[in-house]
Amino acid sequence: MESLYVIKIGGNIIDDELLLTAFLKKFASIKSKKILVHGGGKLATRLAEKLGIPQQMIDGRRITDAETLKIVTMVYAGYINKNIVAHLQSRQCNAAGISGADGNSILSHKREKAGIDYGYAGDVDQVNTDLFKQLLDCGLALVVAPITHDGKNQLLNTNADTIAQEIAKAMSSSFDVSLVYSFEKPGVLLNVDDENSVIRILQALYYKELKESKKIFAGMIPKLDNAFTAISQGVKKVIIGKGEELDQIIAGKAGTTISQ
Amino acid sequence: MESLYVIKIGGNIIDDELLLTAFLKKFASIKSKKILVHGGGKLATRLAEKLGIPQQMIDGRRITDAETLKIVTMVYAGYINKNIVAHLQSRQCNAAGISGADGNSILSHKREKAGIDYGYAGDVDQVNTDLFKQLLDCGLALVVAPITHDGKNQLLNTNADTIAQEIAKAMSSSFDVSLVYSFEKPGVLLNVDDENSVIRILQALYYKELKESKKIFAGMIPKLDNAFTAISQGVKKVIIGKGEELDQIIAGKAGTTISQ
Repeated sequence: MESLYVIKIGGNIIDDELLLTAFLKKFASIKSKKILVHGGGKLATRLAEKLGIPQQMIDGRRITDAETLKIVTMVYAGYINKNIVAHLQSRQCNAAGISGADGNSILSHKREKAGIDYGYAGDVDQVNTDLFKQLLDCGLALVVAPITHDGKNQLLNTNADTIAQEIAKAMSSSFDVSLVYSFEKPGVLLNVDDENSVIRILQALYYKELKESKKIFAGMIPKLDNAFTAISQGVKKVIIGKGEELDQIIAGKAGTTISQ
Repeated sequence: MESLYVIKIGGNIIDDELLLTAFLKKFASIKSKKILVHGGGKLATRLAEKLGIPQQMIDGRRITDAETLKIVTMVYAGYINKNIVAHLQSRQCNAAGISGADGNSILSHKREKAGIDYGYAGDVDQVNTDLFKQLLDCGLALVVAPITHDGKNQLLNTNADTIAQEIAKAMSSSFDVSLVYSFEKPGVLLNVDDENSVIRILQALYYKELKESKKIFAGMIPKLDNAFTAISQGVKKVIIGKGEELDQIIAGKAGTTISQ
């Protein structure tokens, strides 16, 4: 099957112009079909502050009231998305930015969880693989903003890690998908204080061992559990590494590669 | 040739939820291929006010400094564009929103005019008709935000009337294009105070006569001159009328139709 890269970047790249430029240069030069999923970074929080709209986080997730939804729609689907696209265009990478509403690409529903009102936060129901395939077949590199919709005229703020994972899983029936998570560290570390302790290949058995012996940093466990779930659902590889080393990651020379 | 509708709406529709809903309902039900170009409305001005960014207009055009470019990118390509798309999706119209940077759809250059610095304002150089055709062939209704790019990593604020006209002209080699301008009046009026005095068909000769006898409201003349230019460059029809009467306009029962 043909290769497809689904690459997710978050705040540590988006908020740092030098890192973002380094990353986009490398993203632009990937020859295979490719999808970039971006998170939000600090810009939405700063805009909310300037506008006097208080922001509330629960377990690292932003509570999205109606005013905050406006802000994230503007910042994520507008400012960040279009600036990334314009940058890629200037590097001869024919990119197009979409949200989950565009082409009905990602359908979600408003998160309902007993006791917590996340507001207009979306949990993904369905990735429109036909649409993604059609757009990729137009020769476009896709840049996905973490705003989805419910099909009933409601936009929903949606976790970018989840979007990347759901796209990767859904596209696995048609492509050999490599899912790359950009991270502030060069990979999964055996010793959290030593950037040279990157685990190059992390297989399910070894991971189990490391978890049992508590050698994995607790904060990494949900990410890694998700990565193994993606692998078990058809994604060929999940790689975690520094976005600005994307070329090295793709060449198999950097990052942690997670496999069955 | 196949029909294509290029329809432009501005602030009088965008800023009025009831009119916008009425318009989108009618837009969604058009069976032909279709492109909606939207302007900005008052939201960008209001956001600039809240953020304390002074806005300057010259001849009805916004002077786009760097901070204002951020705002219009957020509001036009983010908030307005994605809300229109989500609304159309809820009406089973498979819409996708783009700016001129997406898919390199509209290339422009920074306006240079002796004596006036418009800032980051774009004048259109080229419409990527192949991209528009490919996306329309995916079954998508396109929603175009008035933000373009110069191919060198610069987004540019661009007049929505001009964008609609340039798309209509460029697509005329492949489609029978009807270009519809939504307007606060039901069409071109013989008597500016009488909404029942709509000129139903305005041909070049009659227009010349009306201009010479000063029977056309001066403010309409640039719009109409542009409409006749579009017609002379291949657009099949230009129709001016109320957006909320779009069904009547398309049925030929409302608005002013401009033809050679």
